[in-house]
Parts: sequence; structure tokens; C-alpha cells
Amino acid sequence: MDPSGIAKAQVLTEALPYIRAFWGKTVVVKYGGAAMSDATLKEDVVADIVLMRYVGMRPVVVHGGGPQIGEAMAQAGLTPTFIDGLRVTDEATMRIVETVLVGGINQELVTLMNRKGGPAVGLSGKDGGLIRARKSAPRKGKGTNAEVIDLGLVGEIAGINPRILRTLEEGGFIPIVAPTGVDEEGVTYNINADLAAGEIAGALTAEKLILLTDTDGILDPTGKLYPTLSRDDVEKLIEDGVIGEGMLPKVRACLRALEGGVRKTHIINGKVPHALLLELFTAEGVGTEVFQ
Amino acid sequence: MDPSGIAKAQVLTEALPYIRAFWGKTVVVKYGGAAMSDATLKEDVVADIVLMRYVGMRPVVVHGGGPQIGEAMAQAGLTPTFIDGLRVTDEATMRIVETVLVGGINQELVTLMNRKGGPAVGLSGKDGGLIRARKSAPRKGKGTNAEVIDLGLVGEIAGINPRILRTLEEGGFIPIVAPTGVDEEGVTYNINADLAAGEIAGALTAEKLILLTDTDGILDPTGKLYPTLSRDDVEKLIEDGVIGEGMLPKVRACLRALEGGVRKTHIINGKVPHALLLELFTAEGVGTEVFQ
Amino acid sequence: MDPSGIAKAQVLTEALPYIRAFWGKTVVVKYGGAAMSDATLKEDVVADIVLMRYVGMRPVVVHGGGPQIGEAMAQAGLTPTFIDGLRVTDEATMRIVETVLVGGINQELVTLMNRKGGPAVGLSGKDGGLIRARKSAPRKGKGTNAEVIDLGLVGEIAGINPRILRTLEEGGFIPIVAPTGVDEEGVTYNINADLAAGEIAGALTAEKLILLTDTDGILDPTGKLYPTLSRDDVEKLIEDGVIGEGMLPKVRACLRALEGGVRKTHIINGKVPHALLLELFTAEGVGTEVFQ
Amino acid sequence: MDPSGIAKAQVLTEALPYIRAFWGKTVVVKYGGAAMSDATLKEDVVADIVLMRYVGMRPVVVHGGGPQIGEAMAQAGLTPTFIDGLRVTDEATMRIVETVLVGGINQELVTLMNRKGGPAVGLSGKDGGLIRARKSAPRKGKGTNAEVIDLGLVGEIAGINPRILRTLEEGGFIPIVAPTGVDEEGVTYNINADLAAGEIAGALTAEKLILLTDTDGILDPTGKLYPTLSRDDVEKLIEDGVIGEGMLPKVRACLRALEGGVRKTHIINGKVPHALLLELFTAEGVGTEVFQ
Amino acid sequence: MDPSGIAKAQVLTEALPYIRAFWGKTVVVKYGGAAMSDATLKEDVVADIVLMRYVGMRPVVVHGGGPQIGEAMAQAGLTPTFIDGLRVTDEATMRIVETVLVGGINQELVTLMNRKGGPAVGLSGKDGGLIRARKSAPRKGKGTNAEVIDLGLVGEIAGINPRILRTLEEGGFIPIVAPTGVDEEGVTYNINADLAAGEIAGALTAEKLILLTDTDGILDPTGKLYPTLSRDDVEKLIEDGVIGEGMLPKVRACLRALEGGVRKTHIINGKVPHALLLELFTAEGVGTEVFQ
Amino acid sequence: MDPSGIAKAQVLTEALPYIRAFWGKTVVVKYGGAAMSDATLKEDVVADIVLMRYVGMRPVVVHGGGPQIGEAMAQAGLTPTFIDGLRVTDEATMRIVETVLVGGINQELVTLMNRKGGPAVGLSGKDGGLIRARKSAPRKGKGTNAEVIDLGLVGEIAGINPRILRTLEEGGFIPIVAPTGVDEEGVTYNINADLAAGEIAGALTAEKLILLTDTDGILDPTGKLYPTLSRDDVEKLIEDGVIGEGMLPKVRACLRALEGGVRKTHIINGKVPHALLLELFTAEGVGTEVFQ
Repeated sequence: MDPSGIAKAQVLTEALPYIRAFWGKTVVVKYGGAAMSDATLKEDVVADIVLMRYVGMRPVVVHGGGPQIGEAMAQAGLTPTFIDGLRVTDEATMRIVETVLVGGINQELVTLMNRKGGPAVGLSGKDGGLIRARKSAPRKGKGTNAEVIDLGLVGEIAGINPRILRTLEEGGFIPIVAPTGVDEEGVTYNINADLAAGEIAGALTAEKLILLTDTDGILDPTGKLYPTLSRDDVEKLIEDGVIGEGMLPKVRACLRALEGGVRKTHIINGKVPHALLLELFTAEGVGTEVFQ
Repeated sequence: MDPSGIAKAQVLTEALPYIRAFWGKTVVVKYGGAAMSDATLKEDVVADIVLMRYVGMRPVVVHGGGPQIGEAMAQAGLTPTFIDGLRVTDEATMRIVETVLVGGINQELVTLMNRKGGPAVGLSGKDGGLIRARKSAPRKGKGTNAEVIDLGLVGEIAGINPRILRTLEEGGFIPIVAPTGVDEEGVTYNINADLAAGEIAGALTAEKLILLTDTDGILDPTGKLYPTLSRDDVEKLIEDGVIGEGMLPKVRACLRALEGGVRKTHIINGKVPHALLLELFTAEGVGTEVFQ
Repeated sequence: MDPSGIAKAQVLTEALPYIRAFWGKTVVVKYGGAAMSDATLKEDVVADIVLMRYVGMRPVVVHGGGPQIGEAMAQAGLTPTFIDGLRVTDEATMRIVETVLVGGINQELVTLMNRKGGPAVGLSGKDGGLIRARKSAPRKGKGTNAEVIDLGLVGEIAGINPRILRTLEEGGFIPIVAPTGVDEEGVTYNINADLAAGEIAGALTAEKLILLTDTDGILDPTGKLYPTLSRDDVEKLIEDGVIGEGMLPKVRACLRALEGGVRKTHIINGKVPHALLLELFTAEGVGTEVFQ
Repeated sequence: MDPSGIAKAQVLTEALPYIRAFWGKTVVVKYGGAAMSDATLKEDVVADIVLMRYVGMRPVVVHGGGPQIGEAMAQAGLTPTFIDGLRVTDEATMRIVETVLVGGINQELVTLMNRKGGPAVGLSGKDGGLIRARKSAPRKGKGTNAEVIDLGLVGEIAGINPRILRTLEEGGFIPIVAPTGVDEEGVTYNINADLAAGEIAGALTAEKLILLTDTDGILDPTGKLYPTLSRDDVEKLIEDGVIGEGMLPKVRACLRALEGGVRKTHIINGKVPHALLLELFTAEGVGTEVFQ
Repeated sequence: MDPSGIAKAQVLTEALPYIRAFWGKTVVVKYGGAAMSDATLKEDVVADIVLMRYVGMRPVVVHGGGPQIGEAMAQAGLTPTFIDGLRVTDEATMRIVETVLVGGINQELVTLMNRKGGPAVGLSGKDGGLIRARKSAPRKGKGTNAEVIDLGLVGEIAGINPRILRTLEEGGFIPIVAPTGVDEEGVTYNINADLAAGEIAGALTAEKLILLTDTDGILDPTGKLYPTLSRDDVEKLIEDGVIGEGMLPKVRACLRALEGGVRKTHIINGKVPHALLLELFTAEGVGTEVFQ
Repeated sequence: MDPSGIAKAQVLTEALPYIRAFWGKTVVVKYGGAAMSDATLKEDVVADIVLMRYVGMRPVVVHGGGPQIGEAMAQAGLTPTFIDGLRVTDEATMRIVETVLVGGINQELVTLMNRKGGPAVGLSGKDGGLIRARKSAPRKGKGTNAEVIDLGLVGEIAGINPRILRTLEEGGFIPIVAPTGVDEEGVTYNINADLAAGEIAGALTAEKLILLTDTDGILDPTGKLYPTLSRDDVEKLIEDGVIGEGMLPKVRACLRALEGGVRKTHIINGKVPHALLLELFTAEGVGTEVFQ
């Protein structure tokens, strides 16, 4: 008898307590970073999410833009400007962001996921009125004499209507959300994917929010990982400037989700193969957990 | 008392027999042509479709590409080639078609429709595995010495999985479908919107398929409209060459829908304001009706 | 192309915001007065109510007695007496009221409504225990030396059991209620139709109560219409004697409905053709609105 | 310990096999004759029907007119004419029949039944489009020189739409049907109650049809009861003239019900107290059973 | 006509008000004592419970062990010890108790009940995690020098998970519960059947708990029955020592049920034939009622 | 990062195609033999079955008696006799079989399974009327002069009523069936567990039947495993005497299941740890597959 077969069976039964614990629960995954540009990692993440659905979870994916947006902008002769990690967005940029995000990146994920078993359905924040947006306030650039800069079509989330997500979940579909939003005049906005994931997790009172990033989690000033942090801890670290600009929207997404009633949020390293399953199906988990 | 008010009420009660007749019925609308490039007509079509939903119908919209695809190709320095009304599609073209169709045109319709009351959800043929495609056979160009031309990523419909449409209908949403398709290897194809609408209408056993075109319907050689035609009539007209190249995919869509059990199909002039409502809510209707 | 067709379509799309606003909402209509004796008005009211159902509302009709009760009493050699707009009712009168109301007027409305599309079901206050009644207290006649008069089988509403209405609504039927009631000993009472409509609207927490009367609404002492009045306004007007005896039960019905949680109540002129649709589907509405 | 208590408990447990056998089954009861004019018998029948519902059956009652119609006609100075047990019905008569049947007799039954626990809902053949009617063919009177007589507003059943009965059954209500009908022009007809009960039983594919009459069942020429008869037996007896004019509509109702798939039909003596329960809950039953 | 038939029908209609009152209500029956050892009484109890289900109640049965456990222990050469009516239970005894209770007595009841119409399903406290148990505290024996005795595998109820009972009720099954329990380490305990019935009634917020015992109910010191007692009365009687050791677990079961929201509890004499039906279907009832 | 964690994740994602394929499918497992007497194997089997439920399958377990029945019989001084693998069963034996099977073995499995996550519910063939039995025909012993022997209370399956299994499946419970049966007179029979599993799989039109045995599957005369056999192959092997007495009931169970519409049946070696998962989640599977 094949000994490796038995070892594999052992792995499956060891996963049982975790499978039981998350049965029927909604888990929102923010997908982005290296896990999105590396083809092998992408295959793994997609397989992990389909597996999550088939072992009884209700995954909802929110993805960011990848290198494709930059490429498309370069092709169109546009140079991106970023402030606080937010892309300054004029109308021409917004058109590119939207078509590439919704028609390109999102559809590619849907295709991959359906090949693994899906069934996935792509959504934007406009579909079913999922994300209501409003224009973000202008930001001050860095430095003492920095100008106040209008971010253009960068939007904040004014509200989430989760009905389309509930309808798809009950139909057994995996929703894949491209984070655009629309205001009451029908103007389209670019929405930060981390914050969209946090708000959606809160609106669904999800069990978990997991953000795939390119670092191991939240690090202390010496570069050591914090395995768990409370909300208070995190707010203290922000105040103390320990949490850097790149990590800030992710941490804020966690805080928003926790306010909305999500039980646990996780910032994990998407460069680790199958990081999602490691977080969900092992006792120690990976990355930093921010809890209520 | 305001006499125009009373006249308006009269109009509403005159619509009652039609409203009753279509209550709870699925109506597939192929949206394209001039009604899509003219901003006022577009507003009207969108309002008509939202009205259809609120008076009890279950509309499903399938849209084609509009001038935006041509523009995007021109911007990218690509020149389109058409054979039998089908766009020869290489990979670069397909990428543009998909992003503009799914991320541009589709999302614009969703936005408009949600502003009129919706609630609309954009779909591609990939979402929920809606349209399974396969590569179209190469076509012979015109003329005796014409070469056989590979159409590239132009696809035929291999199958429709209407489950996502049913899920959205039952949730009260209006599905707006951008006609892409995907084969078993995950290759994306450009699908003719007329044929996609015909197949979808058949798969849903819709009550009606209505195709918005730029002419009044099917015309006889003297330019006179045929108000009604049976399937046999239509097949005879195709054989006799009365139905021209531009009208052919629309007529084939009707035939496919009728084979699938759809009761009536209509080719109407989208340049007439509110042509959809005139077709649905007046005794004479408009355009050409092709019936079982 | 028929320009009137396009004008008609325009009317339909203008109605869309109102149709959306009342989608799935219960609207109780008190039907009586001239709109019930004039054959053309009757046709219009019935068509309006069927239309309401087909554009997504849930209409419930409560009707009064019309001239038919008077005729039947005259034929039987009985002379009616009224106090405060309430018919003094002995047993012989009650028998005539019940048979004519439930077997005559109600069934005529059901027939008319079913011919327009219905589907209508006639109910009395006895069916499914809809209206529990108790004997009204005796009233003092007018004038200083007026006797206290026992109203006989005139009843007050002791309770509403709306389950039969909910069952019919969910089955897609339009309930048409003849306002009789029964007490715990099985004695049948004549119930004022206005008050029955008000109580039923309250028990269903309807969106609206609309009373069709023979005047334009509540008028000020100079005969000018009050377009809107708050509950407090109305109570003040009753105190000041501005609201006359004929209007009193209608106003009380509005107050009862508002107490029960109905959002808006309307007293409108049933002599205006399609007054119901004008109230529901135009911005200004008609008649007097009494609101929370 | 009370011995009569134990005897009573014995009776209940003896009923168990019958209660189990009819659990969830529809039983149509034609109620008429002496059981309707005698107050004590009426109380018993009503109690029996409420009991049927509470031990799990789904009773549907169809009632005829009683002496009240004759009285009302006499009061109005009209003399009834009968042909083949069918009342010749002019417009004035029809108006009296309808108001007394629907507004009088039906409502009295509803009141009684609700006092016993109900919950009962009165219906006419018009409510929910239950009975579609058409004018009966003229009949030849008796005797060789008899004229052909137009029966006026006597109707035949053109169709049954049982949806309102199903809606009420599922809501737990007992429907009480007054057998009027309406044709496509909205003309009201008088429908024979026996035949209405037979058609309704067939349309519901009821388990049983039970007709309460004033004799013990179908009698042979010597006056002896036939306890069971097959459809063939019955058709032979009609041919041979053994079944008299009064019994004919009842027998025809049984045959119609059997054609519609009803398993057993019973003609029983309504003058026997609790004849319904004796038929349902004892091994021998009572009256004549006509079976498939 | 058979006069006894009519008398029987009378009995059935007299039961109607009680049948209506308990329609759809859950009634928990603790079955034990003489009613379990006497074959005729057993038949009667089983028939009564099946009847309860068919007249619309939702019975749940909890049974104790009967003489069979003693016999099986004797056969195995074990002598039972009882303290406060609780059987001291070592592992060998527990194995016998469980096999005889769950595999013997329970299955015999299921067989009998299914022959009467059922449909019954046997459960232990382990099935679906129905009864969570914990080890009972040691008890002091009687007398001044009495030792403290460990009761072994006698358990207390730590919690009830009624989901399996709800699932079976909704499927139309009658659950028959053998009162074993299991703790978190998987150790099996013997649970007092009276207390199990009380806790289950509370967890289901049953309408009634009925305990079948071998005496007429709670008796005063002169041997006279208390027909009704409030919770306060009962607590006083316990304090005063009026309620003896045998009656104590039954009375405690009533108190637990009442705490859980059960409306009425009854201690009745199972030696009276059909005592259950007499309690449920007669005005006076039997035994002692302990109420909120 | 823990490399073994990643290896484990790999195992999980490799299982995905199998998990998808069996999602929502019923799989009947016959549990017996060594896998039941060895404590470690038992833990594994139970964990495997709970895992099956949590990855979306609907497992139904049928178990045989183990060594415990023999022990209990020895204790009671009874010596078992077997004919064709069937235990000759007198009344005393039947009582032991039933109590040990239903009250002992079944409850032990329920306890184990609930500790792993369950939720399991024990059933006998009597519960909910699951297995209707009839007495088996007498069998001829071996040898030419062998007597015909009455098997006593050994039963054949006369019918399966799967309603209780469906009710439990829909409630999310895992049914564990002890194979007793009952005939119309209420006599209890001992039913072969293999055949019970086969009949139940057929009655549920299960996706698979898996029988855990003590050998690798069906072996050819040289002792080599047949990996797959068609029904025809198997019938040929029976005819040729290749399939021995011990394997016969297992093979017959497969044939009965296949007749009932089960797609695949498997005879596998329960002594291999996690044999169930290896069969379900690896490409090659284990044991012998008998297919349609």
C-alpha cells in the first residue's frame, strides 16, 4: 500500500477541526501584490480559494490592480502619481483603471477560478450598487511646504449594499470584486482595494478578513513580526509611527472590519505558497492577526 | 383638474393588458447599434428596460460593442478586419475587445441603469460559466479566388449555463451580459452579441427575444417591411438571398431562440425612441416578428 | 412612426419613479361614493386597482354600500334612519345590508375586476375572522332635547385579524372587503366602511390609505383645499368644527391608520377620472394628504 | 376514576386508523337539504367539518340554497319554476339567488363555522375565477307535447380554476363555496351545487366527495339501499330508470368527480346526526359509495 | 341507524375544543412505571401518543428503564443499589443499562408505535448530541453515620441540544428518547428519565410536560390529591417534607420545565387506561397540575 | 516558513478535484470487520467519515456486529451457528443481537463520531420504518445429505423507506444504521449488514457504496486483485465459483446497489489506514470497483 497515500490522508484528517470551525462562514480575502504578478503563486491562491468554498466556507475576493494598470497607462503615455499610496486619478486614468481592472484583471481571475472549479462571478463596485462612493478630500503632500493636492477620481466608500454578495453566496458562487465605486451623480471612482475589502467584510459581518501582502505581516522597528495585536495595540503603533505608509491602508482595513463585527483579521505574506491555507488550516497560522 | 394628468392615466390603463400578458415572463433584449451610440436613445432604452422589470417582466440584456472598441483599437494602432460581419480577432485585439466590452461598455450600462432604479449587475460570458465557447471554423472570403481566413479568437457558442442568470433574476436583479466566452483551455473568445442573445433566450426559454437594430426590421426587395414572418418564411428568404449579410446574424439569432422554445422574436428599429415599449405595449407592435 | 405611440411611451417611463417607490407595498383603498354609482367611473377605478397590482403594489379594497342598499330597503318597505352618518340598523335592515353588500355589491366588484385581469377575491369581515365587532354605544340625536338612540346592529371594530389578507396577498389575489363584522356571540354588525379601511390599513401597516370621496378633500371654511395636513392639524380642525359630519369618519379612518403605522393617508375626489393613478403616479398628487 | 371518560378515550383511539388514512387528504362535502334547514343538524355538520380539519383533513364545502331563497322570492312576489331539478332563472331571480346565496346562506355558514373554530372563508364561484360558466342548453319539459324551455341564467360549468382553493387550503382555511358562476362576458349564472361539488372534487383530485342528501343513499326499486356501486353499475341504473330525477344530479356529480380522479364518492343521509363522521370514521360507513 | 355510532361521533366532536387548543403544540411525555410493565396499558399509551400526533400535536416521549434492566442485571449476577431513587452505576452496570435501555426498551416502543401508525424514531441522549452530561456529585446515604457514596456513572444534565428533536418534529416523526448522556471525554452516563423529560420540555419550550407515574398525583398528608399547585406551593411542600423521595424527581422535573417556559406540567396516574387522553381531552383533566 | 506546512497545503489542493466531484453526493459506507475491532483503525474510519461530511458529501453508515455480539452470547452461554455467513438466530439470540447492536455498537460509534465533530444520529432498521423485513427461506447446509435448516429470525429485506435518512441528511446529520428489521406482525429480524447497505444505497440512489472488508478486494484464483469489474464480470465469477462464501454477501450488496442506480461500488481493505479517503481522494483508488 502506498505510504505517501496514507500520509496524505493524515493531512486531510488533521485539517478537519479547522474545516469544521469555518463551515458556513464568510471569509473575505484581499488579493493583491506579488501573489498577483507571479503566475505560480496566482494558480495557488486561486486553488486555495476554490478549496475554501468546497470545504464549506463562503469566500469573497476583493482584488487590487496589478502591474497591468501601469502597463496600460504607459502604453497610453500617462505617468502615475501616488499620494499616501493612493493613485491620483484624472478621467483618462480612471477610464484605463476601470477597463483594465474590471475587464482585464477581474476577468482573468474569474477564468482561472472557473478552471479550478469555481463557480466564480466577477463584480465591480457598481454591480448591484455594491459600493457607493464619494470624492476623497484633497491630501497634503509630504514636506513642510507641500501643496494640497486634489486626488481627482479617488473615492472614499460612502456605503456598502451587500445584497448582490448575499444573492451570489446563496447561489453557491464565489464573488470576485473589482473595487470601483459610483456616486449619486453616476461619477466613477477608484477605490482602494484594502479599504473596500475591510468595508465589505464589515458589511457581511464576515468571520475573517485576510489581506495578502508582500511582507510577513506587521513588523516591529527591529523587523520582527507581531503575531497578534489587539485593536488598541494597533492604534498605539499607528500613533507611534511604527506602521509605515504602505501598511497603513491594510491596517485601516482591519480596523474597519473589526468595527463592523468581523471576529479576526489577518495580514499575511502572499509570497508564501498557499499562505491562505496555512493561515486557515494550521494551529499557529501565519502573519499578524489583529483581533477585537 | 389637470386634463393632461387624466390623459396620462388613460395611457397607463391602456397598457394594462400588455403588462398582464408579460407578467413574470423573461424577455431577452439584444442592445446595440445607433441606440447605443446616441446618448438620448441610450437613456430611453435604459429607462424602458428598468420599467419592464418594475411592471413585472424579467429582462435580460445582451449588448454588443459600440464605437468604443473601434476607438480603442485605433488608439492602439490596430485596424479591424471583418468577415461576414465577424471581427477577425488576434490576441491584442481580443484583449482590447474584452477590456472595453466588459470594463467599459458594460459598466457604463450598469451605471446608467442603476441610476434609473436598476438594480443591474454586469456579467461577461465567463461569469458563472455562462457562455462556453469554441473556436469558429475558418471562413472563405468573398469572390471566387478568395482565401480561407482564420478568424482568430472569434468563437462559436458551445453551450450556455443559465444558472447565474436564474440566480440574479430570482434576486430581482437585471443581468447585463457582455458576450465573451471561454473554452476548456481557458482561451477567451469574442462572441457575436446577436447569436449570444439568441442562445441565451433559448436556454432560458424566454417569452420573447427583441433585437434592437438600425433598420425597421426585415425588408422585402422593394424596401417594404415584413411585419410578421414564420420560421419557414425566413428560411426561404435566406435561401433566396433576400436577407443581406448585415441582417443575417440577427435572423439566425431569432431562429436559434425559436428552436430553444422562445415564443416570439422581434427585430426592431432602435433609432425609434422607446421602440421597446412600443413593441411590448401596443397592439400593432413595431418591426418584424419572427414566430414559431 | 406613430408620434402618439412615442408620447404614450413617454408617459410610461415618467411613471417609473412612482412605480419603483410603491413596489411591493400594500395600499388600502376605500371605495365608495359617486365613483361607485357612476358606471364609467367604476370601470376606471377597477382598472386602476388592477393596474396597481400589476405594477407591483398590493392593493386591498374596502367598499361601502351604494344606492343598492337603499333600493333594497325601499323594496322591502323599510325607511333608513341615520345618526352621525351611521345607519340605525334593526335585524331586518341588517339582513338586507349583509345580503346586498356581500352578495350584491361585493360580487359585482369582483366580477368587474376579474374581467380587467384581477384576480380578485371577495371577503366579508366574517371571512377568516377578519373583523371582530362589538355593539356601538347609543348616540344622542341632535338638538337640546334629543333622545339617546340605540343604533341597533351598528358595530365598532374590536379587532382585526389580517391573516386572510396576507394569505391572499401572497397568493397574488386582490382582496375586496365588504365591511361586516361579528361579535363573540355570532351577532352580525354593520361596520362603517371608512373606519374598517382605516383599521385594516393599520393592521397591515400599509404604505398608504386612500379614501375615494365625493369632494376634493378636506376644505377650509372658505372652501379651499388643504393639500397636506399633519395629525395635529387635523385634530385641531376637528376641535374647531371645521371638519363636518360627512367628512368625520373619513378623517378618523386616516387617524386610526396613522396610529397603526401607515405612512400617508389621502382623501381624494372619486369623481375625477383615474383619481387613484393621479394620486399615486404624479408628483403633486390630488386631494388632501394627512401624514404622521 | 370516571368510567365514561375511559369509554370516551376508547372512542378516540378507535378513530385513529381512519384519522391516519385521511391525514392531509382533501375531502369535498356537498352540504344541502334537511341538514341545512334543521338548526341542530346544522350545528352538527359544522362541528363535524371543523373536526375534519383539526384531525388533518382538508375539507372544502359546497353548499346549495336552502328555503331562504324560496322565502326571498316569495317576498319579492316571484314564483319559482323547476325543470329537471333546475330552477328557471330570469334576471330578477338571479339577483335574489346570488344575494341570498352569497350574502346570506354562505355568510351564515361562515359565522357558525368560525364559532366552532374554523377558520372558514366564504367564496362564490366568481372569487378568484373559481367557476367559469356558460349558458345551459334549453330543456324539453315533460310530456309528448312539451315545449322546449330556455332555463335563463342557469349555467353549466365550463371550467374550474382551483388556485384560490389551494391558496386557502395551504393557509389552513376551510373554503365554503356558494355555487355561482360567470361567463366571459361577465354574466352571472346559477350553478347546480351538486355538479359544482363534483367538478371541484375532480379539479382538486380530492380523496373523497361526500354528498349530504335527504335519503339514505341510492335505493333499489324495493327501497333497499345499495351500499356500494361501481361506475358501470350506476350507469346501468340510470339507463334502466332506477335512479329518479331528484337523485340524478347527485349521481352525475359522483361520476364527474370519479372521472377527475377522485377515489371514492358517497351519497349519505344528512338527517342522521353526524353522518359525516360516521362515514369517515367507522368501518361500515353509511349511505351508498360509488367508486371507480 | 346505529345509535352507538352517533354516540361515538358525539365523543369526537366533544374533543374538538381540546384538539384545537393543542394544535401544533409540543407535548413532552415522560413514560414509565406500571404503564410500561403492563402489556395492555402499554398498548393504550402508545395508541394515545400516536393519536396525539395525528390530531396535530407534536409529542416527544422520554422513557425510563423498566423491569428489563433489573432482569438483565440479575442475569449478569449484579445487584442494584439505589440512593435517592438514583441507581449507583459502575461500568458493567452502565453497559447493561445502555444496551437494554437503547437497544431493548426503546426499540420495543418504536416497534409498537410504528405498528399503530407512528412514525417513531428512537433516540438516545447521545444522538445528535441531545443530552450533554456531567458526573453527579456524591450523595450522603440515610442515617446519621451514613457514608458519602459516589454514584459512579450517574450523570446530571449539563445541557440539551434540541436540534435533532426539531428536525424530527418537522419531518413529522415522533421522537422516543432513552435518557443516556455523554460528557466531553465521551464517558456515558445514566440520566434520570424524569429530569431528562423536564429539561427537554424546557429546551423545547413545550406547551405541556406530562409525567406518567404509579400514583394519582401529588397527595396531601391525608392521601388526598392536590388537583393544582403553583410553583410556590410545590416548593413549600418540598420544604415541609410532604413530597416524598419517590415523587421528588418528578416534582423537580416539573419545576425545571416551568423554569424553561413550559406552560403547564402534569403528574398523572399511568395505571388509569388512557390517562393521557383524559388529561388532554377532558375539562377536569386528571392528576396534579403544577403551573407557572 | 515551515516547509511541511506548504507540503500539507499541497495535499489539500490536490484533493480539490475529488472534493468537487463528490460535493453534495450521498456515499453509503458499510463499516465492519477489522476496522471495527482495532481501536486505531476505528478512530481513523470515524474521522474519515466526519471529514467526508465537512467537505460536502452526505455519508450514511451501515455497520455490522463486531466481536461484542459473540462475547455477549458467550456470556449468556449461547453458541452461534452460521450458514452461508448468516447467523442462525433464535429469540434469545435475537434479543442479544438487537441490544448489543443498537444499544452497544451503534451508540459507541455515535459517541466517537460526535467527538470528532459529527453530528451523528444512531438508527436501527426499525426507526422511521427504515427496513421492512420478512423471514428468510430455510437454507440447505453443505454436503449431499445436509439438512434444510430454518435460520430462525434471520430476515430478508422486503423494502426500504428512506424518508428518515433524507430528513437527517437535510438536517446535516450523519445517520449510523444498525441493520435490524421488522415485519408486519412486529417480529424483529437480524439483517445482513452488507445487504442492508446495498439496499439502502439503492433506495437513496447513492453516488457510491463502499464496503470496508478484511481483504484487498475481489481476488482472482491466484490471489491477485481485480481493480475493476463490470456487473457481467462479477456474475460470471460467481457462476465460476471464484467468489467465495465470505465475499458473496458483499458482492451481492454491490449488485443490488447497482440495480438501484448507484454509479459505483467498491470493496476495499479496512485494515489499510484511511482506506476510505484513499478510495475517494486519489486517482487510482484502492480495492475492487464494481461498476454498472
